[in-house]
Amino acid sequence: MNLTSELDSAVFTTETKSPSTLYWSDEESRELSLDERVALLTEFQQVRGQTETLIEPLSPEDLQVQSMPDASPGKWHLAHTSWFFETFILEPHSPGYDLFEPTYQHLFNSYYNALGTPFSRLQRGLLSRPRLDQVLAYRHHINGEIERWLTEDEVTSDLANLLVLGINHEQQHQELLLTDIKHALSINPLYPAYKEQEPSAPEDEGAAELRWLKIPEDNYTVGSDGQVFAFDNEGPAHQRYQTPFKIASRLVTNREYLEFLQDGGYRQPRLWLSDGWAHITRCGHAAPQYWREEGGQWQEFTLAGMQPLDLDAPVSHISFYEADAFASWAGYRLPTEFEWEIAAWLHCRKNAQQTANMLESGQFRAVAEIDALFPDAATSDAQFLGNLWQWTASAYQPYPGFRASPDAVGEYNGKFMCNQMVLRGGSCVTPRNHIRISYRNFFYPHQAWQFTGIRLAGDDL
Amino acid sequence: MNLTSELDSAVFTTETKSPSTLYWSDEESRELSLDERVALLTEFQQVRGQTETLIEPLSPEDLQVQSMPDASPGKWHLAHTSWFFETFILEPHSPGYDLFEPTYQHLFNSYYNALGTPFSRLQRGLLSRPRLDQVLAYRHHINGEIERWLTEDEVTSDLANLLVLGINHEQQHQELLLTDIKHALSINPLYPAYKEQEPSAPEDEGAAELRWLKIPEDNYTVGSDGQVFAFDNEGPAHQRYQTPFKIASRLVTNREYLEFLQDGGYRQPRLWLSDGWAHITRCGHAAPQYWREEGGQWQEFTLAGMQPLDLDAPVSHISFYEADAFASWAGYRLPTEFEWEIAAWLHCRKNAQQTANMLESGQFRAVAEIDALFPDAATSDAQFLGNLWQWTASAYQPYPGFRASPDAVGEYNGKFMCNQMVLRGGSCVTPRNHIRISYRNFFYPHQAWQFTGIRLAGDDL
Amino acid sequence: MNLTSELDSAVFTTETKSPSTLYWSDEESRELSLDERVALLTEFQQVRGQTETLIEPLSPEDLQVQSMPDASPGKWHLAHTSWFFETFILEPHSPGYDLFEPTYQHLFNSYYNALGTPFSRLQRGLLSRPRLDQVLAYRHHINGEIERWLTEDEVTSDLANLLVLGINHEQQHQELLLTDIKHALSINPLYPAYKEQEPSAPEDEGAAELRWLKIPEDNYTVGSDGQVFAFDNEGPAHQRYQTPFKIASRLVTNREYLEFLQDGGYRQPRLWLSDGWAHITRCGHAAPQYWREEGGQWQEFTLAGMQPLDLDAPVSHISFYEADAFASWAGYRLPTEFEWEIAAWLHCRKNAQQTANMLESGQFRAVAEIDALFPDAATSDAQFLGNLWQWTASAYQPYPGFRASPDAVGEYNGKFMCNQMVLRGGSCVTPRNHIRISYRNFFYPHQAWQFTGIRLAGDDL
Amino acid sequence: MNLTSELDSAVFTTETKSPSTLYWSDEESRELSLDERVALLTEFQQVRGQTETLIEPLSPEDLQVQSMPDASPGKWHLAHTSWFFETFILEPHSPGYDLFEPTYQHLFNSYYNALGTPFSRLQRGLLSRPRLDQVLAYRHHINGEIERWLTEDEVTSDLANLLVLGINHEQQHQELLLTDIKHALSINPLYPAYKEQEPSAPEDEGAAELRWLKIPEDNYTVGSDGQVFAFDNEGPAHQRYQTPFKIASRLVTNREYLEFLQDGGYRQPRLWLSDGWAHITRCGHAAPQYWREEGGQWQEFTLAGMQPLDLDAPVSHISFYEADAFASWAGYRLPTEFEWEIAAWLHCRKNAQQTANMLESGQFRAVAEIDALFPDAATSDAQFLGNLWQWTASAYQPYPGFRASPDAVGEYNGKFMCNQMVLRGGSCVTPRNHIRISYRNFFYPHQAWQFTGIRLAGDDL
Repeated sequence: MNLTSELDSAVFTTETKSPSTLYWSDEESRELSLDERVALLTEFQQVRGQTETLIEPLSPEDLQVQSMPDASPGKWHLAHTSWFFETFILEPHSPGYDLFEPTYQHLFNSYYNALGTPFSRLQRGLLSRPRLDQVLAYRHHINGEIERWLTEDEVTSDLANLLVLGINHEQQHQELLLTDIKHALSINPLYPAYKEQEPSAPEDEGAAELRWLKIPEDNYTVGSDGQVFAFDNEGPAHQRYQTPFKIASRLVTNREYLEFLQDGGYRQPRLWLSDGWAHITRCGHAAPQYWREEGGQWQEFTLAGMQPLDLDAPVSHISFYEADAFASWAGYRLPTEFEWEIAAWLHCRKNAQQTANMLESGQFRAVAEIDALFPDAATSDAQFLGNLWQWTASAYQPYPGFRASPDAVGEYNGKFMCNQMVLRGGSCVTPRNHIRISYRNFFYPHQAWQFTGIRLAGDDL
Repeated sequence: MNLTSELDSAVFTTETKSPSTLYWSDEESRELSLDERVALLTEFQQVRGQTETLIEPLSPEDLQVQSMPDASPGKWHLAHTSWFFETFILEPHSPGYDLFEPTYQHLFNSYYNALGTPFSRLQRGLLSRPRLDQVLAYRHHINGEIERWLTEDEVTSDLANLLVLGINHEQQHQELLLTDIKHALSINPLYPAYKEQEPSAPEDEGAAELRWLKIPEDNYTVGSDGQVFAFDNEGPAHQRYQTPFKIASRLVTNREYLEFLQDGGYRQPRLWLSDGWAHITRCGHAAPQYWREEGGQWQEFTLAGMQPLDLDAPVSHISFYEADAFASWAGYRLPTEFEWEIAAWLHCRKNAQQTANMLESGQFRAVAEIDALFPDAATSDAQFLGNLWQWTASAYQPYPGFRASPDAVGEYNGKFMCNQMVLRGGSCVTPRNHIRISYRNFFYPHQAWQFTGIRLAGDDL
Repeated sequence: MNLTSELDSAVFTTETKSPSTLYWSDEESRELSLDERVALLTEFQQVRGQTETLIEPLSPEDLQVQSMPDASPGKWHLAHTSWFFETFILEPHSPGYDLFEPTYQHLFNSYYNALGTPFSRLQRGLLSRPRLDQVLAYRHHINGEIERWLTEDEVTSDLANLLVLGINHEQQHQELLLTDIKHALSINPLYPAYKEQEPSAPEDEGAAELRWLKIPEDNYTVGSDGQVFAFDNEGPAHQRYQTPFKIASRLVTNREYLEFLQDGGYRQPRLWLSDGWAHITRCGHAAPQYWREEGGQWQEFTLAGMQPLDLDAPVSHISFYEADAFASWAGYRLPTEFEWEIAAWLHCRKNAQQTANMLESGQFRAVAEIDALFPDAATSDAQFLGNLWQWTASAYQPYPGFRASPDAVGEYNGKFMCNQMVLRGGSCVTPRNHIRISYRNFFYPHQAWQFTGIRLAGDDL
Repeated sequence: MNLTSELDSAVFTTETKSPSTLYWSDEESRELSLDERVALLTEFQQVRGQTETLIEPLSPEDLQVQSMPDASPGKWHLAHTSWFFETFILEPHSPGYDLFEPTYQHLFNSYYNALGTPFSRLQRGLLSRPRLDQVLAYRHHINGEIERWLTEDEVTSDLANLLVLGINHEQQHQELLLTDIKHALSINPLYPAYKEQEPSAPEDEGAAELRWLKIPEDNYTVGSDGQVFAFDNEGPAHQRYQTPFKIASRLVTNREYLEFLQDGGYRQPRLWLSDGWAHITRCGHAAPQYWREEGGQWQEFTLAGMQPLDLDAPVSHISFYEADAFASWAGYRLPTEFEWEIAAWLHCRKNAQQTANMLESGQFRAVAEIDALFPDAATSDAQFLGNLWQWTASAYQPYPGFRASPDAVGEYNGKFMCNQMVLRGGSCVTPRNHIRISYRNFFYPHQAWQFTGIRLAGDDL
């Protein structure tokens, strides 16, 4: 069965895969029409504006802090996303463009070694200068220059796609900005909120019942076919022979995870991968990263501050090691990324992300009652999109025939294809039009500061 | 195409897959016949004896040293392999057996957490007691007890297979003993030889010409079908859809690798995986682990001491990061473990390991002129077996349907299925009857103290 | 010879030892007079105000940064000094006082374990909340409460001395604030200035000629006699038998230190203490911390940004290891703290700190031409006070009969009397009325981020 | 009071200060007489032989192990002491001498940077070659060459003193060999004995009563006057003004220390130096290094294996931090090294070391009942010599006028005069004729693997 031919073709419209991001799949590069320029400009402005909306609750001090090597200061995210447009669009493709401040090329390069040694990642939090107001001035300068370029210069579809890449790159950093500030605030004994929120309504109905979605064996096509925007690591589309499997209709809940914990899950080496056991032993981990027990009551640090643990909500901020150990304890396993993708194609309705708990929902955390957010939505989407990135059992490796871009932007994804695991589905802080079913996120198996959760799978049908 | 049905069935005899190791694939456990006991006893004695032959050139001091956390002292290998038989056979299955020394259960447990916390791996080299003579006494005691058990007690085929596992386990440690002592000796400025050897004869003919073996796309069956002995991680046999590929007919040579090095390969971040670049930068690596440059001449530390670099021999003691960077530089890639296995099934003759450079060849290093070792052998085996373990592009993960054994011995392979890469083919220090085409070895991508090398692959046919 | 009896008694007035800080040496505690309260209030307000003047050139981001474990964020210094008054004065001695914010007791405790486990020193830079404006509000609240307490409550001389201790504590943090921000700014490739300054005038005359001050052997009295304010570690006054010695009339200059460097000083292990050699080898040090060579020209990072190295100025930001190695290279040694103190008593004029290069001079760096700053001053003070803290050869240990205060404030000095070296004299960022000849500063021998320099001594008269 | 003039001159014979080690204090170097050569040869042979006697209970494996960076393998001690004679006597002063094996110059150099970069200290335990038998052959070769040189070559008193230095150096390594092997054996869960010993007899009488020796203030002379052999760091002799003090007549016992422990001594930060508290917190120390609690009973690892804690014996293997914290808890302090020396001069009888518990006693641990060892000895020596090295409150720093030797042997003592504390008195594993009252041993304050103990002092007379 070739997935793209067998399923309702309506599912596979551009809108579903990537609902609003523009993209040009023309074989030959061509000049953009005026309408296309306007659409692109609108998208650019919307996304750039959204970043600045996200920092409104934050002070210059909040945006200065780097709370661990994996995280970056908010101010750095603001500057780096601008650096991306300056470095890959304006500098090479906007004739006569002068760098805003040459030292920024060094300071705000993340990891593009082809462009010179980046400023030490570990020291990003030490850059008190430029100040926040200076970084915002840098942003606004870049905005103006891109707007001028889009309206005045010759813009080909190739370059337009590069701009679309920059827009998607900015969206990735919107999510990182929130995950990083969550980590920073969590260290502070004052437990400050990013944004105060009303406590959730009483949850009378509990989490949805877990059903098993069963998928037959076959050769399926997976990966992006290049008709809509996708990162290079999502392609090429290719066939996979898939053995039969079942996959859960929802994520594992806090209640279920608490049962694992209370059953001694963190003290039984047999449940853990060897590296996972070494990791939790060395770090003294005995609960999810943001859980705190006080007086026998479990609480969870959220972007609305410390809150009672919502037992019906999906368990979040879980490392791959924890996800894998939980699955072993429960008698299941994690799905491979291909199983996840095949099941998501088969079970997600068109535009499923429109009724998913994502950045625009304003929740900033995983919730049980998605129906409460979207009362009119069918609940058949099985939480594939939104809420939490879902760890898969798949190591992050290239698809057959994968080739990274030969120029500097080619350092984007390929060089990380070792030691990391694939996550799928987006989270409550992923912008809604940024996610796709073919989207491959990746993190190291010990990392838990992202909005990550667990979906179970199994072999016995 | 199902590989097992399409190819010459003669290839798939027990001999090729696993030429002499015994195995019982009966569905139901049954008692062993006398002949079977004799065969098993002979195999046990041969392998146990071979271990002691290997340590003959070594002093008590040599066998005491642990030169890095990844390695273990030779004396520890001698004791741990005995511990395995005592723990998994004698203690549970030999009625009335008394432990030789109860503390050894703790000291010589490697990583079986289900049996209690093992003695710290990092401190194995600090155990001056038991002395070598005491460890050898422990070995001989275990030998006697196993022999008695095999001849006097009731031995079922299930238990026989457990003993076969112990024999294979001992063979793995024979290889580790040599790789570990090589590392230990290499640190010593006296550069001592494990075993002096005549310098190789002049190599007039150079390395074999590299040919590309081309394999068409299809669904292939890979993995062990359980008819001969195999580790649990080699199964279940299952189908894979394979895109078309080509694979090199021999390993990359020192000459080719030197060209990479001299072209600045270690100074170009674009050739390296991100983690690989971080690793070589942090450690200051600029050449393979055992290469030394002196007066403009490259030398290589071998088990015969420091030797001039043999340019025609396969480059050895290479990390996965180095292998991957070399492949990028050369314009190719590494094969996946499935590509390697499919190609090996198609190109290896029956009993190919009999004419491969393996432990019994007594070379203890990779050589170019395998023909010199085996003048009568056809050279069509493409070096798939022996010489060096070959890094594949595949992360070490479970096959579909993999289940680890539920008891303590189940910690053998499954819990390492994260962060490591698969290697295939065996090496010049692997016992000849230990290797199989389906054999999956695995190490972390930065590790280079094993006898590891590079085979290239590509997509363009 | 008892120093206090033999020398001109005019030298030993309160003014010289501690020119303006108030202190009550009454044997029995008594209530303060109105005038005394006013004097104390004035001093308190002046010092608290000076701290806020010092941060005027700094942004919230600058004050957030902690650039190494030894340093603290400026914002933390602002809060911690307020915490000191709240914890040691208001909470125990101002009836009915309510803590401003209870969590601050934990957040802004530096190292007083008797008051509970302090917030991790390594994470001070991660506390984005309270924000700068909130910390300033905390400061102003404490100011108001202390002012109210001083004017309305019963204040005894004992408590007045505790307040004086708090004032001196605040002055210590004024200096630390500047040394810490200098370190933070130095890491930034933009090399920002704390405060722009005119480049120094051409230095035609060079550094003063070095003379040797010769001191005869005798029993001398050293240490504070308790008649003026002093930290507990400065007493008791006691006798020392001193062998004859000579001591330099000025500090070692950049020119002299550059000669050491260019003579291979950093490459000759024989010049270094064993721990010093290990330290510079491990860290790769080959020049003073703030020196940068660019195009063959040496520059120095200062609080006015990157500047050409002033060859006549004293070499600054030198570790004890560097100071000791330089002295060995020069054929001399460092003075003991007792030699320094005896020489300073004998050679400093009354009120010598009034014409020393200290915080109020506004230079924020060591200068050669002190005469240019104070054209009317005699130059006979031999730079004992101001410019740079001078490493002595003395380990920081208790004086005979030393007793730390039995309550929480007793953790102030005594518990650091191990592994550190004594420095004497104050620096260009020490408040002028904070220094005394008996003042004992102390840092670890590898530390160089303070304003530290070298004075030589010798035995041959 | 000048100590040397006031006390019974009989105390200051060569025998007391350094009972049998030879030494030439002639102002001008002169050739040795035959008798002198014979005496020197006898001493050399006795000490070299004693080293080999000490290793008799040890296997090649025991002598291979390096259990921590501070320790060295026994085999390395055997080789390094030979290297010392080869490097400082034979190579420069025995014409025509050929190095035994040139690589040994690198391998067995400890820390003499002037002689080239030594082999990494951390890797001494990895040198399996040369084997023990080869190292013993090296020793015997050196012995023969020194014997030949002493009998055949021209030997001046200067060179004789260098040989005496080598002999004393060998004695230092005899002690280190035992402390290092004790540490290595202690890590082994088999708790092996270096030498089995009868359990001590029942201790009915308990430890001696603690008396306070009171010493009046005065100017005292301390340090070696150079008339007998002493290390360079023991001189020059010089005056110290000493305030009055009292000092304990015996060491602190295990019983007393246990009381400190049971009173929560390891949990009260106020008792500890700041660095000490950080150290025990980081390392999780809650008892002396070799204490183990099992079933509510305290045991102590000794060179005779694990033994019940002898409550009357002096507490041993104590870090300076522990000693200082105990003293704080007890309401006393540690003596300075000058206080210790003055008291020892005043209270030790002539040849006190002859009735002290030292290496030749064969106890290899601190004992309470020294009288049992020496029934005829007076007990008035106050345990100043033998049993345990006693931590003093003095940082290890040069005496006034100290000059290290200008040649390579000058790296012996001076370069360690930073960050370490002075210990006095020798221990149960110090050779009897190696100790002197002026002897200054030194270790880092966190180190506890030496035989170290506590003597209290105080100010209140």
